[in-house]
Amino acid sequence: MTEPVPIRGLWCAMLTPLGADGDLDHARLAAHARGLLAQGVDGVVPFGTTGEGPSFSVAERCAGLETLLRAGIAPDRLLAATGATAITDAVALTRHALQSGCPRCLILPPFFWKGLSDEAVFRYYANLIEAVGDARLRVYLYHIPQPSGVAIRPRVVARLSAAYPGIIAGVKDSGGDFEHTAELLRQGARLSILAGHEPHLPRLMRAGGAGTICGIANLFPDLAAALLKPDPEPDDEARIRSFLDIVLRYPFVPAFKAIRAAQTGDPAWLVPRPPLRPLSPAERESLFAALQGAGFGIAAETGRRRAEV
Amino acid sequence: MTEPVPIRGLWCAMLTPLGADGDLDHARLAAHARGLLAQGVDGVVPFGTTGEGPSFSVAERCAGLETLLRAGIAPDRLLAATGATAITDAVALTRHALQSGCPRCLILPPFFWKGLSDEAVFRYYANLIEAVGDARLRVYLYHIPQPSGVAIRPRVVARLSAAYPGIIAGVKDSGGDFEHTAELLRQGARLSILAGHEPHLPRLMRAGGAGTICGIANLFPDLAAALLKPDPEPDDEARIRSFLDIVLRYPFVPAFKAIRAAQTGDPAWLVPRPPLRPLSPAERESLFAALQGAGFGIAAETGRRRAEV
Repeated sequence: MTEPVPIRGLWCAMLTPLGADGDLDHARLAAHARGLLAQGVDGVVPFGTTGEGPSFSVAERCAGLETLLRAGIAPDRLLAATGATAITDAVALTRHALQSGCPRCLILPPFFWKGLSDEAVFRYYANLIEAVGDARLRVYLYHIPQPSGVAIRPRVVARLSAAYPGIIAGVKDSGGDFEHTAELLRQGARLSILAGHEPHLPRLMRAGGAGTICGIANLFPDLAAALLKPDPEPDDEARIRSFLDIVLRYPFVPAFKAIRAAQTGDPAWLVPRPPLRPLSPAERESLFAALQGAGFGIAAETGRRRAEV
Repeated sequence: MTEPVPIRGLWCAMLTPLGADGDLDHARLAAHARGLLAQGVDGVVPFGTTGEGPSFSVAERCAGLETLLRAGIAPDRLLAATGATAITDAVALTRHALQSGCPRCLILPPFFWKGLSDEAVFRYYANLIEAVGDARLRVYLYHIPQPSGVAIRPRVVARLSAAYPGIIAGVKDSGGDFEHTAELLRQGARLSILAGHEPHLPRLMRAGGAGTICGIANLFPDLAAALLKPDPEPDDEARIRSFLDIVLRYPFVPAFKAIRAAQTGDPAWLVPRPPLRPLSPAERESLFAALQGAGFGIAAETGRRRAEV
């Protein structure tokens, strides 16, 4: 394993396809990853939030990562999401990623307990890193308090980075608060700061950020890539905002999956894992109408017809 | 396996003891369960919230249940906590409980996603029950929105109970809102309604509730039992409230563990699993002083000295 390059550019928080039995669809997962890389995405993250990671068991997540590697996805194009509520599970997932040749791991804080102190968050990651016990590990801290209920504050990031230099490699900031992101950039100058909230990308890149790990890359990688350019068009940022304004009227993973199903004409993509529910045909119809009204050319007619099979 | 009797009376949400290595301490777990039953507790629940269930892997939780059975705890004194964010994990834990002779399972809703609709919560439990596919299963729904972030509304309970009569056996209501509990009693007359918030017990029992699954039973089972009597003393309810007023100034699991360590003189009890942190010696000192001031006779002096080893 060579020294892993810091993550930069456009990374996709991959949607996770399911078979008719509700199990992980390994063939579609591999094909989706290959397709994204062919479209110019710099790397893929299986089993993040957009990928419904916490809805899959440790064994399923390990098998999914192995599938991607067997499908020829290079380890330096992979960031393994290895967080879990049980530290024993997070350690097992992280060790498995390392053993598979993927030293870069995106790690959620444990998300059952609420009101954790900064000290508790620091100690959790410290315990995890020490339990994994592998200097090759590269941790990307995952700040997404909306579902996790646990914030990773910039001062915790700075403290972890000082305690584990090299191992703490970056932060995915999906909190949607640019002040938080800006403070990360000030406190963690050596780290890859990646935004999950796409409209922040132009500001992030001007301020020295590394790029994005985002969900929109599943659907419109060019649109996300446009925001990473040195001089993005104001129109591109407006376009991303208008897309999110429409999509976030719905639960976002089922909405993303509905769009993917429409784009590919493959209704298998429609289905998320419980507790998430697929959009209803009526919801899909109104989503697609709104997107088309805003100029998003998804293959909605064809997709919807096929998706209703 | 005989038809499981509905859960009634005083059940203990067991604390989970750890060894010096942070692993589950099987011998202390078995001894604690036996001790509780010897003190008159009607049954025990391993790996609930007080037992830090989501901090343990599926394999650890299965092994803990097996330990209790091997230690001679009768299956009808056990309620297995089998919820998990991945439905595949929840199915595996629930099947394992059934295969072990424990058909009664306390099941958290999946707690990563927030803002789930009633339909999503209903469908999740329906999918889980159908995936387990065993008519012997007895589900106790676990409403504890403070950490889980997902409410189980009375109308969802009623709908599940109508769809799976017999299988839906009860609700543990730890929300601390007696109006919610009262609505459960109105809508789920055939179910065992168990309160997690101890001060509600006298009102619950007058209104036809079944009893409690509570954490205080780890420490003062007599105090919790007193509130289940037909005519509890007003003093007993005041005593429980004063205990909680003091303890809830601290993270409750570390505080409960500190008291248990003091009561037993066994410092191994002090330690929770990350991300929870043990109380500091200063926190323990002020907790114990406040409890003693309120008349709670824990063996604090002896316990504290030993616990500081």
